[in-house]
Amino acid sequence: MSSSAARYTYLGPEGTFTEAALRTLPEAATRVLVPMVSVPAALDAVRNEEAGGALVPIENSVEGGVTATLDELATGTPLMIYREVLLPIAFALLVRPGTRLADVKTVTGHPVAQPQVRNWLAANLPEAVWESAASNADGARQVQEGRFDGAFAGEFAAPTYGLEPLVTEIHDAPNAQTRFVLVGRPGRSVAPTGADKTSAVFWLGDDHPGALLELLQEFAVRGVNLLRIESRPTGEGIGRYCFSVDAEGHITDRRVGEALMGLKRICPQVRFLGSYPRADETTPQVRPGTTDEEFAAAADWLGRALDGRA
Amino acid sequence: MSSSAARYTYLGPEGTFTEAALRTLPEAATRVLVPMVSVPAALDAVRNEEAGGALVPIENSVEGGVTATLDELATGTPLMIYREVLLPIAFALLVRPGTRLADVKTVTGHPVAQPQVRNWLAANLPEAVWESAASNADGARQVQEGRFDGAFAGEFAAPTYGLEPLVTEIHDAPNAQTRFVLVGRPGRSVAPTGADKTSAVFWLGDDHPGALLELLQEFAVRGVNLLRIESRPTGEGIGRYCFSVDAEGHITDRRVGEALMGLKRICPQVRFLGSYPRADETTPQVRPGTTDEEFAAAADWLGRALDGRA
Amino acid sequence: MSSSAARYTYLGPEGTFTEAALRTLPEAATRVLVPMVSVPAALDAVRNEEAGGALVPIENSVEGGVTATLDELATGTPLMIYREVLLPIAFALLVRPGTRLADVKTVTGHPVAQPQVRNWLAANLPEAVWESAASNADGARQVQEGRFDGAFAGEFAAPTYGLEPLVTEIHDAPNAQTRFVLVGRPGRSVAPTGADKTSAVFWLGDDHPGALLELLQEFAVRGVNLLRIESRPTGEGIGRYCFSVDAEGHITDRRVGEALMGLKRICPQVRFLGSYPRADETTPQVRPGTTDEEFAAAADWLGRALDGRA
Amino acid sequence: MSSSAARYTYLGPEGTFTEAALRTLPEAATRVLVPMVSVPAALDAVRNEEAGGALVPIENSVEGGVTATLDELATGTPLMIYREVLLPIAFALLVRPGTRLADVKTVTGHPVAQPQVRNWLAANLPEAVWESAASNADGARQVQEGRFDGAFAGEFAAPTYGLEPLVTEIHDAPNAQTRFVLVGRPGRSVAPTGADKTSAVFWLGDDHPGALLELLQEFAVRGVNLLRIESRPTGEGIGRYCFSVDAEGHITDRRVGEALMGLKRICPQVRFLGSYPRADETTPQVRPGTTDEEFAAAADWLGRALDGRA
Repeated sequence: MSSSAARYTYLGPEGTFTEAALRTLPEAATRVLVPMVSVPAALDAVRNEEAGGALVPIENSVEGGVTATLDELATGTPLMIYREVLLPIAFALLVRPGTRLADVKTVTGHPVAQPQVRNWLAANLPEAVWESAASNADGARQVQEGRFDGAFAGEFAAPTYGLEPLVTEIHDAPNAQTRFVLVGRPGRSVAPTGADKTSAVFWLGDDHPGALLELLQEFAVRGVNLLRIESRPTGEGIGRYCFSVDAEGHITDRRVGEALMGLKRICPQVRFLGSYPRADETTPQVRPGTTDEEFAAAADWLGRALDGRA
Repeated sequence: MSSSAARYTYLGPEGTFTEAALRTLPEAATRVLVPMVSVPAALDAVRNEEAGGALVPIENSVEGGVTATLDELATGTPLMIYREVLLPIAFALLVRPGTRLADVKTVTGHPVAQPQVRNWLAANLPEAVWESAASNADGARQVQEGRFDGAFAGEFAAPTYGLEPLVTEIHDAPNAQTRFVLVGRPGRSVAPTGADKTSAVFWLGDDHPGALLELLQEFAVRGVNLLRIESRPTGEGIGRYCFSVDAEGHITDRRVGEALMGLKRICPQVRFLGSYPRADETTPQVRPGTTDEEFAAAADWLGRALDGRA
Repeated sequence: MSSSAARYTYLGPEGTFTEAALRTLPEAATRVLVPMVSVPAALDAVRNEEAGGALVPIENSVEGGVTATLDELATGTPLMIYREVLLPIAFALLVRPGTRLADVKTVTGHPVAQPQVRNWLAANLPEAVWESAASNADGARQVQEGRFDGAFAGEFAAPTYGLEPLVTEIHDAPNAQTRFVLVGRPGRSVAPTGADKTSAVFWLGDDHPGALLELLQEFAVRGVNLLRIESRPTGEGIGRYCFSVDAEGHITDRRVGEALMGLKRICPQVRFLGSYPRADETTPQVRPGTTDEEFAAAADWLGRALDGRA
Repeated sequence: MSSSAARYTYLGPEGTFTEAALRTLPEAATRVLVPMVSVPAALDAVRNEEAGGALVPIENSVEGGVTATLDELATGTPLMIYREVLLPIAFALLVRPGTRLADVKTVTGHPVAQPQVRNWLAANLPEAVWESAASNADGARQVQEGRFDGAFAGEFAAPTYGLEPLVTEIHDAPNAQTRFVLVGRPGRSVAPTGADKTSAVFWLGDDHPGALLELLQEFAVRGVNLLRIESRPTGEGIGRYCFSVDAEGHITDRRVGEALMGLKRICPQVRFLGSYPRADETTPQVRPGTTDEEFAAAADWLGRALDGRA
């Protein structure tokens, strides 16, 4: 393993949920884990061959898509997704040792954390003033420095910053989760496991009404379910979008491959972001008529039909 | 050429429009043309290898599909279509020499002829009684025998039966045409000409609402236009249908092949009836994204995507 | 009841299945039943106010749509359907008294009967020559006159023509049925019964690919199931069709009404043929979101939304 | 005007693009404009009847939907949109008087600003360290306080904070725009202008594949174009979404009303957010068959059909 391949970057600083997610991956144990200041920085290290992979958040069950990640994957030098990690999200209110709840007048955390603790704040610290930090861990650091009284972060971040978790398991929404992806330079997709996911970005050609409907029909007619669809501005002005999509199945599944080819033909631009195992290990229900065996049988039939032997 | 291959059957008797259509085919000049009493008889001669081909009517611009032909092609020992012929339809009123219009009290003709001369009859022979004959030529024969006063048939049938055309160019609908197909035993389809047609029959699996919509979408999503769609009862009871379809393009066109495979996968039964040159020589407008080149480019892209080189 | 309203015409002559179907209607007992020589004649009597109604066959589970009826209803002076009758079809072979099966060399019947007895003929009278008659009853009359040895007709026709049923219950397809409709001059549709059917004819505007798909989607999006769809030539040339459709439900069902209005807007011509009770008394499964109550609730909601009270 | 109705809140602090957008509205001249610390705070003031309206950003041509606004409008006490404002976005680099470009080591701004100035930074200040601020104006304040060397903000914010615009017209994407909406308590929508937009949020019932396709088809079948569609997590876990949609047209347009009712019937929850004039004043192309006149004509036809007079 080259020294750069041995490095994995992640959205830092140390003590973020992203680091916690990265440490759930077995290969993390054999890599040097390098915190970066931003998603673009983490990914650029991979692009520049300074790292073999980068773990970044891509979707949050409360806040939705992480737009920095979605946009970085959609544009610039191509990257691909090789793994995903789902992490249940619960915040701790980290304070300097000795701080009591009544002492907390100012709190901080990543902007994404704010809607996830909003109700808790209203109920428990209605007078506390929120100010956003660059990351949850950065908020913890600022509490350490005395700039704020409390920081919402993962409980695991407390020791790094000499703080104490005053309250734990804070999350307005039950079952809140964040999804992270392990991104690398383009290469062969991971072999199918039977419970896979395929990510891609599609640009719609002209702005004709119904273009999105056509995009969805390319999936639907081959029985490929969509797990996520997110519109992102192309940057060409209000009303111009591309679509970031997760579909059920693997690019080597015939129904997925045919759908991707169909989309490749009707979209001016398609970016394949990889097929990889689903973290939830859910095996898809394959619609009758769309298994690989049925695709192969239909191809055989077509060959025979051509010769008059169908 | 074996003696049976040298024989072409057709829907007789001599003097039918079908014979006239058959004689427009260059190869007819080198075949023995054998009139048969019915469409099934003409086709069974091919099935039984007593003939190399059979010309039968399949569609009429006034009367619609010729159900005997549609049903014979859909069921039983498979057959395939290799050519089509379009014939403008105009009737002559054939009478025994010396008959005047005022003498015509009874008229006959094939049931399909009746709606095509109905208005003419109402205007010119409002009192005449119509009785159907087994074919237009059979009607002519019965006029010869004295059973009826006039027969509607092709003008070309007059000499065969010793009759005279009293009135010609009778056709209620302008531009009335009949489409005939040359049917043979299954074999390799004729090579694509660029202006081709593909015929097939599709059975819908269960009777769920929307099954027909799904069938049409398999064509639509690949940009394959339908030229004809006809529901036919499957014989399993009111409300159970199969669909006889003509689509634009040739089975070797990638968009047509993929649509047929898609239908093969969702339909419990598909019968391919052949790809053959369009008699009207109309070149299709191919929707952007559905040319063979675009299919090939998308397949290349998929291969590269699989390897991370897209 | 005026004298003309007291008359019901039907596709004659006496002894046809149509007469048998008509006699299953309670109101037939109080009407004068008048056989007519053809479907157009039976319907024209209604148009001309010489009869209050006409019973004609419209669909056969073996032969498909009765094109004369479909085309008569689609064109000319408008008519409407008020009732339907389903009759199981079984033929008897009617012969002159004393005829044995071995004596039967020639047989006749309506052309529609032929495919329904073809297999039986092949198995039991392989040498017998078939010639078509204008109707099954007319075939019986010709047997009476000695022109043929046997006629396929309803067993009930035997006494009318002094014949005997030599074999009964002949029908190649099990469960063969014919559907008849009672047609009258346009008027208010029969009140909904909960198990209703709506018939209409739709012309497609221009010949753009996907026009049929759009037609079906107007039904699908409102959850209206199609029971029958039949393409019919418009008479303007090969490739120009209108569609004759039976849909589940009654014009007063909100989902059916909205679908019809949608079709009225996209089709250059629509002909409503009536809503009437289903002969099979099948109550439809109404898709969630398409009941009258849900339509009414959505309309209420829209009104409130307009006022900011939704 | 009550004192609360006379107040408009906006996403503050003073000097934000939002304030600039608000000042483009004629009615702003007669209102007291109150900056608020967050989108929720600005909207809650309206909910609590402390303000008559609130101007908040909803969409950015570079960054996409403003999730705080989308989520606030989708949940909690209902609000409605009455106006929209489009503002071209260009940043100035604000510095303390005397600062030269070479002196700028640290820069700040709202996280949304960062991707819009990223390329400019890479080209002109490659060494500068970015740290996010709560708002562009808050960044300016922190520059004033000496915490950072430069802040990206609207040029108009400079005097408020005693800063100077060192560089102006910075925007990586040409034509970058932000869309703002004027939100109020629910009430009657603004009358149609002919160039209108309708906003709503739709929840999909169960998670069946194709649910989004059905949603889009309710619009498509009535010829209603979508201008924006954005999936937002419902907070019930990864993979559960609602859809925030802008459609062309006004709720009083028949095609829009019918589409909304169709969606109301198939979605477990729909929130109408208002119909209002389009800031770009684009008049929609209405598909044939979907004008109000055609809806009215179809309704008339249905009434006549019911009575047999169609």
